[in-house]
Amino acid sequence: MSAPSSRSVIVIGTGAVGGFFGARLVRSGYDVHFLVRSDYEHIGRHGLRIDSVDGDFTLPRVQVHASAGTTVPPCDIALVTLKTTENRGLGHLLPRVLVPGGTVVLLQNGLGEEERVAAIPGVGSVVAGLAFVCVTKVGPGHIHHLDYGTVRLAEYAPGGVAAGLTPALQALCEFFEGAGIPVIPEPSWLRARWHKLVWNIPYNGLSVVLRADTAALMASSPIRALIESLMREVSAASAAEGHPIREESVGEMLANTAVMRPYLPSMRGDFDAGRELELETMYAVPIRRARAAGAPMRQVEALHAELQFLSARRAATA
Amino acid sequence: MSAPSSRSVIVIGTGAVGGFFGARLVRSGYDVHFLVRSDYEHIGRHGLRIDSVDGDFTLPRVQVHASAGTTVPPCDIALVTLKTTENRGLGHLLPRVLVPGGTVVLLQNGLGEEERVAAIPGVGSVVAGLAFVCVTKVGPGHIHHLDYGTVRLAEYAPGGVAAGLTPALQALCEFFEGAGIPVIPEPSWLRARWHKLVWNIPYNGLSVVLRADTAALMASSPIRALIESLMREVSAASAAEGHPIREESVGEMLANTAVMRPYLPSMRGDFDAGRELELETMYAVPIRRARAAGAPMRQVEALHAELQFLSARRAATA
Repeated sequence: MSAPSSRSVIVIGTGAVGGFFGARLVRSGYDVHFLVRSDYEHIGRHGLRIDSVDGDFTLPRVQVHASAGTTVPPCDIALVTLKTTENRGLGHLLPRVLVPGGTVVLLQNGLGEEERVAAIPGVGSVVAGLAFVCVTKVGPGHIHHLDYGTVRLAEYAPGGVAAGLTPALQALCEFFEGAGIPVIPEPSWLRARWHKLVWNIPYNGLSVVLRADTAALMASSPIRALIESLMREVSAASAAEGHPIREESVGEMLANTAVMRPYLPSMRGDFDAGRELELETMYAVPIRRARAAGAPMRQVEALHAELQFLSARRAATA
Repeated sequence: MSAPSSRSVIVIGTGAVGGFFGARLVRSGYDVHFLVRSDYEHIGRHGLRIDSVDGDFTLPRVQVHASAGTTVPPCDIALVTLKTTENRGLGHLLPRVLVPGGTVVLLQNGLGEEERVAAIPGVGSVVAGLAFVCVTKVGPGHIHHLDYGTVRLAEYAPGGVAAGLTPALQALCEFFEGAGIPVIPEPSWLRARWHKLVWNIPYNGLSVVLRADTAALMASSPIRALIESLMREVSAASAAEGHPIREESVGEMLANTAVMRPYLPSMRGDFDAGRELELETMYAVPIRRARAAGAPMRQVEALHAELQFLSARRAATA
């Protein structure tokens, strides 16, 4: 392995995804800062612990910060792993932790956030990041890595245009690969986003509505058929927006999920913990775009309505 | 009120619907027999108790039978108020309790049962019956009547043809009206069946999936919109089969349900009690017919898949 990159990175949101990938970077000698809210004290004292299918490891000391305040040096890369429901604060935060013209990687689900982040003063390039990984936070600074671990990266360009495989994107891919993280560069950020939604929309929603993990969902033939049908709706909407997804993708995702360890998608974790659900970026925005593109996703709309009901009732009884 | 009809009736399945309408007939002096399974002993001893928005009443003695055996005299009319999941036994039962050529009223939900019952030897005419009533069985022989109470009746004819308002149907309407039961005769049995499904499909399914009564469902604007959308799918399927439903029906049903007392549809009661759900007649048959008619009901199909999942899990953990 070559010498670690001299580019510094700040991980914003040290939940399962941020903790996992951040820890991988630290382990490889990168200059990594973690901006942490609720687990600040615990991580400050005990660092991070990763129980991984690729081998467990602990990092007793990491550079951790409770706020953007004065302790965070300006970093070259901001790796945003917040829920999109928490993105509201980025306009205030990013200028305080990023070198002018720095790179923001939105390693998040859903649609519709790149535009807003690109408009924040001082932000250089924005990269859409998609984590294909099964990770769960089991305690403060303690993360279970159950399966997979690839990241897809695509550079944002305004108006849905594909930025292509730019030199900046290639450099960013090498940055992550230097820490042993498998990266797939994507020419089109919107296609990459839609592609991830093909998986996220059925599994996240149904895991909440039916209170079931991926294995239980896949064991039911009516639900397996429904998942495929939902996937095809999302895929058709993506194609209608000008971002066709490979025909075989749906079958591959179904097959991969069927053999994956039983997994509770992140929305189910959010629901059980009483956190706000990512309904806006994962359902409402795609649904509006699909309608505008002339390819309404009727079954996705039904699922969204059910999730809105359950989410509102959860909030009312919390 | 004129003298009660001399036609005798046997009520098959004395749950909420059968108990309620049967009791109304008894109260008006009709010759009514009840075929009862689980509540036979209790009803034999204590009769029926109806707590009704139209006035409470009790019937200390009713003619009750535990089986078709030898005690049931041949009746002129069989009023079938079983769940359609229990219709399997009718081929054996009806010839034992009905006068040859007698009338069978299927006061049930769903689609697809009339054909089978009409083929049972000895059955004269078959009438599709639809109860627009909110009733709940709260104990053995004890029924709460919360709202409404109209019955729609339509004579069955083979092949989906509308039988029209025949003299036999008119006589049957008068029979029920003689007991103060409001009856609306319908010329087309299939349109009447589809019309009822416009209400049943959304409310029954969503009450199970979302664990909510009608009031909670209607209080959520996304769910209200989903219910309307499901209703329009059912309505479009009915029209595609050649049985158009009045355009205003959907709006009227929504408005009526919104002001109705909070109600748990029968499928939710079945689910909570661990009984088999009427998925075949209320979802699977309409879904197949809609597809065959070129008007697939995609959101209804999604709801059906969720119900199949929940029903199977319920059965597995019972």
